[in-house]
Amino acid sequence: MEVLGNLFGLQGLDREAETFDALVATQGLRVERIVSFGQATPEGEWLEQARAEWVAVLQGAALLRFAGEEAPRRMEAGDHVLIAPARRHRVEWTATPTVWLAVHFGASAP
Amino acid sequence: MEVLGNLFGLQGLDREAETFDALVATQGLRVERIVSFGQATPEGEWLEQARAEWVAVLQGAALLRFAGEEAPRRMEAGDHVLIAPARRHRVEWTATPTVWLAVHFGASAP
Repeated sequence: MEVLGNLFGLQGLDREAETFDALVATQGLRVERIVSFGQATPEGEWLEQARAEWVAVLQGAALLRFAGEEAPRRMEAGDHVLIAPARRHRVEWTATPTVWLAVHFGASAP
Repeated sequence: MEVLGNLFGLQGLDREAETFDALVATQGLRVERIVSFGQATPEGEWLEQARAEWVAVLQGAALLRFAGEEAPRRMEAGDHVLIAPARRHRVEWTATPTVWLAVHFGASAP
């Protein structure tokens, strides 16, 4: 039973892109570390996932916007949010670096 | 879709006991924040869970020992480990405070 790694370890990462590391991947669950270096969702695009996502900012900060809301929410280190299946959202800004922990789970939205 | 809380928020917690907060609880999954203020598994006792547990130290530090291993592993902030179902383990020491994030998942061990 090894210590698998360190969530805050950034050595060797490509800063020109976001990095997605699957930490747990089973049929119904994916636990994923995401590291952003200032990346954001491209202008005019939305993210929409079939499954629920619980996501926390562990380090850094981000602006997360949900469709239908007037302003993005600022997420600081430690803040976490539950994104329902099919809920449209976008990342409007990230600090460099920002470390996220995401847990994707459950059945897909119809 | 609200920001549900902050993983590093310790206000109002009872320091005489560990605090367990369920952040996501579905049939097959429990995402849980655990805050320790120096607590450890009582002498001579082992923890053993029917389901798999992925666990990270987000803040603080801990000594985690697995049955059959000679020495505990030191976990620092960001370190994460996967504990298989029915794998006996114990927490030998925690810093004050230590914030853990645990993801319990999957089928129970036979």
